[in-house]
Amino acid sequence: MQTLMNRIMQDGNVLNGDVLKVDSFVTHQVDPSLMAEVGQCFAEVFKDYGITKVVTIESSGIVPAIYTAQQLKVPMIFARKSKSLTMDEELLTASVYSFTKQVTSTVAISSKFLTKEDRVLIIDDFLANGQAAKGLIELCQKAEAEVVGVGILIEKAFQSGRKLLEEMQVKVVSLARIESLENGKIQFLEGDA
Amino acid sequence: MQTLMNRIMQDGNVLNGDVLKVDSFVTHQVDPSLMAEVGQCFAEVFKDYGITKVVTIESSGIVPAIYTAQQLKVPMIFARKSKSLTMDEELLTASVYSFTKQVTSTVAISSKFLTKEDRVLIIDDFLANGQAAKGLIELCQKAEAEVVGVGILIEKAFQSGRKLLEEMQVKVVSLARIESLENGKIQFLEGDA
Repeated sequence: MQTLMNRIMQDGNVLNGDVLKVDSFVTHQVDPSLMAEVGQCFAEVFKDYGITKVVTIESSGIVPAIYTAQQLKVPMIFARKSKSLTMDEELLTASVYSFTKQVTSTVAISSKFLTKEDRVLIIDDFLANGQAAKGLIELCQKAEAEVVGVGILIEKAFQSGRKLLEEMQVKVVSLARIESLENGKIQFLEGDA
Repeated sequence: MQTLMNRIMQDGNVLNGDVLKVDSFVTHQVDPSLMAEVGQCFAEVFKDYGITKVVTIESSGIVPAIYTAQQLKVPMIFARKSKSLTMDEELLTASVYSFTKQVTSTVAISSKFLTKEDRVLIIDDFLANGQAAKGLIELCQKAEAEVVGVGILIEKAFQSGRKLLEEMQVKVVSLARIESLENGKIQFLEGDA
């Protein structure tokens, strides 16, 4: 998606060689009009897949997920990282290791919201090692729901996430694929637009 | 907002006398079309207030906040509850006690995103004791930004949150005001619609 790639070039910052910071328009301050366009883009790709639920993980995935869900006219569910007092029912859980935060967390979705009738599209902001998406796929599998695809805003194509997800037989669609962040320079995979 | 009140009556559940669970359309599974309407409603109320930023706190406030920001054509910022490795710069922080989760957490916003030129609208899903909104107001005050108003989806009018915020000279607008949850029955304040 050209608008997203342009914005990454303009406002993204590279930290420590492999961290791309997009906190002025995705992960902390968020640009609503860009995210609405992201949602339209994912919805266009997945409109014929019979999606019944869009699933993400708190917090940065929530905005692109809700705009995608709005376009597909289905509910969005965000997996929780910590148990709240009002989550008193049966939970589907999975463990997710975050390389950014260097912690393993349990992510959870109330089992009543996913059934074996569901066809799920997973949305997240980043794909790096694929751990978050893998955890969400495992949650869906516990509900016997079918994961139809994974939609990612920014893929670090030099890390192993895509390989991991494709080995799980899941279609991966990324709107911006980064080949390299070496020497602080953002380089997209050739042929992407 | 009648649509929201109808939905609360239809799908809300009362737990333990004072907890209202709306996890099928607000706090865990989210209804995009209802939330888009919520955003339009807040934007209509605050359209002449010169808002420059919509601020919320992760995670349930993010969806109503982004739809409000989209309508007002301004960025949305969500305060973080835990420090991530990529938040390496100067932070505005405040402590927030959550009665639901029974923990005190530090919430943070990067100081570069709020300045004394900003006019802020705070959006959150619930107003009960007002601790989350108070923390966000304190964050904004540290940046010398002006908090113009607080927009709430569901106010527990039998708790002290509104009083606390009004004492801080902030306009509070709630789309559904609940007078009582006694005996498991949801009762709205009379005159609201």
